[in-house]
Amino acid sequence: MIKIVILGAGNIAQHLYKVFQTTETLHVVQVYNRSAEALSYFKNTATTTNLKNLAEADIYIIAVADDAITSIANKLPFTNRLVVHTSGNVSMHELHKKNRRGVFYPLQTFTKDVTVNFSQIPICLETGEKSDFKILKTIADAIGSTSYKISSEQRRALHVSAVFVNNFSNHLYRIAHEICETNNVPFEILSPLIQETAKKITTLTPYMAQTGPAKRGDQQTIENHLEKLDKDIHKEIYTLLTQSIAKTYGREKL
Amino acid sequence: MIKIVILGAGNIAQHLYKVFQTTETLHVVQVYNRSAEALSYFKNTATTTNLKNLAEADIYIIAVADDAITSIANKLPFTNRLVVHTSGNVSMHELHKKNRRGVFYPLQTFTKDVTVNFSQIPICLETGEKSDFKILKTIADAIGSTSYKISSEQRRALHVSAVFVNNFSNHLYRIAHEICETNNVPFEILSPLIQETAKKITTLTPYMAQTGPAKRGDQQTIENHLEKLDKDIHKEIYTLLTQSIAKTYGREKL
Ligand SMILES: NC(=O)c1ccc[n+]([C@@H]2O[C@H](COP(=O)([O-])OP(=O)(O)OC[C@H]3O[C@@H](n4cnc5c(N)ncnc54)[C@H](OP(=O)(O)O)[C@@H]3O)[C@@H](O)[C@H]2O)c1
Ligand SMILES: NC(=O)c1ccc[n+]([C@@H]2O[C@H](COP(=O)([O-])OP(=O)(O)OC[C@H]3O[C@@H](n4cnc5c(N)ncnc54)[C@H](OP(=O)(O)O)[C@@H]3O)[C@@H](O)[C@H]2O)c1
Repeated sequence: MIKIVILGAGNIAQHLYKVFQTTETLHVVQVYNRSAEALSYFKNTATTTNLKNLAEADIYIIAVADDAITSIANKLPFTNRLVVHTSGNVSMHELHKKNRRGVFYPLQTFTKDVTVNFSQIPICLETGEKSDFKILKTIADAIGSTSYKISSEQRRALHVSAVFVNNFSNHLYRIAHEICETNNVPFEILSPLIQETAKKITTLTPYMAQTGPAKRGDQQTIENHLEKLDKDIHKEIYTLLTQSIAKTYGREKL
Repeated sequence: MIKIVILGAGNIAQHLYKVFQTTETLHVVQVYNRSAEALSYFKNTATTTNLKNLAEADIYIIAVADDAITSIANKLPFTNRLVVHTSGNVSMHELHKKNRRGVFYPLQTFTKDVTVNFSQIPICLETGEKSDFKILKTIADAIGSTSYKISSEQRRALHVSAVFVNNFSNHLYRIAHEICETNNVPFEILSPLIQETAKKITTLTPYMAQTGPAKRGDQQTIENHLEKLDKDIHKEIYTLLTQSIAKTYGREKL
């Protein structure tokens, strides 16, 4: 049995709480949040809004907004216990060194109230002390997640990469949605292509999976497309990504 | 029974041939290709490399490279028959008007030898004569595809949109792959996030699904990310897409 205190009551806190409840080995003994409101979610579990009242536990998981992590870690009223955060974007060393430190970062985009399947979620683990790694690994295993040993520097790289594949891809979907609306075409028609594009990289590298006019060096099609775009920002994005693809495939002149 | 002649022996020709074979109502009577080599794929079916020898059929499907469509349509040795192409990028009017014209455009990315499930593929249909629409619709129905009536102008918009969601998204995956390699992180770790990002737009609009520092206006994270990127072209793409997202959510100042 691993005794866990969760600090924070948002998205990640709720998803972790829920999945920990499904295991026999992970026991959430308490949830802390600065405000009482969001704590109503955590039924049947002790809660507190006062850091001084934190319960004894094997691990403290800080799942609050990135810029609040350090200040909460500083205020913890104990030393030499295992304290981890869940952020992709914050170094482990921003946790106060009076405690044993670590990171438990689930690399996925979570939406409140949308159930997630933790067996599909990779978790990036890091600890200051080697002996603490086992606890994090046991927690990841208990919820069925695949885990990876990832340093703070590597995690930072992953976080930037995640912006490209998640935030930026989604924005490209948004642009396609706008173009469809302007032309009175239902956006759903693109959904199978979007799913297939994502699926392809599970069997081919993105380098191998690339297709299209930029890769082929098909200048005529590129010009047709630019002509069809109304918004300047869409033209700019089209041009820059086309240049970048052309460069990747050795077509410097496009 | 609908009698079909396929012109072309590439990717699309092979996939259409294969799926037509699975139906009881669609009969491929002949396949034409300019060169004999690729015709070996079409076993048990008459083939020819000479347009003069084309068989009689209800519909002629031209599935050749975009820039060869017009010249093949011009050379057809008959008139007033139904002739369609399969391109997202070519107007129906580039087919010679001596025949009845149409378009049968499967909106998906096809890879040779990778089986595709046509029930998941939307098909964009267009015909010059209203009465021909029914034949195209019957073919789409027979292979289990959802079909849409789409004009040449709408198809052009869809083709540009497809570049954004397919070619450009894949290039963002490629950039993430490069960042991962530079930092010694396995790229597979991003796969669940990529799949989830694509899946989200089946239940939320891309506008609603957007997350991340650009949307939040989190300048500090944006600066951290730019610092972490080595390549100038990656920085440029990061900056432009960040600006575009910021603008979408009314944060003009980022
Ligand atoms: N959402 C994701 O997809 C995702 C994925 C992986 C990792 N993460 C990481 O998980 C952590 C939590 O993210 P989240 O999505 O769960 O955020 P969230 O849903 O916005 O919840 C934020 C939590 O932080 C608390 N908080 C905010 N500012 C605070 C402050 N100044 N002092 C004390 N508490 C404060 C909030 O308390 P109140 O209820 O009082 O406002 C709330 O409990 C972050 O480090 C994030 O980077 C998120
Ligand atoms: N691939 C996709 O994902 C996809 C998706 C939707 C629509 N389409 C459309 O489907 C059509 C065919 O594309 P594909 O992917 O099947 O192409 P492909 O695999 O490259 O095959 C091209 C075919 O066109 C023939 N061809 C090329 N240049 C020619 C010329 N000058 N004269 C006569 N024949 C010529 C080739 O003959 P040889 O064997 O002699 O070279 C071959 O049969 C295109 O209009 C394309 O836009 C493709």
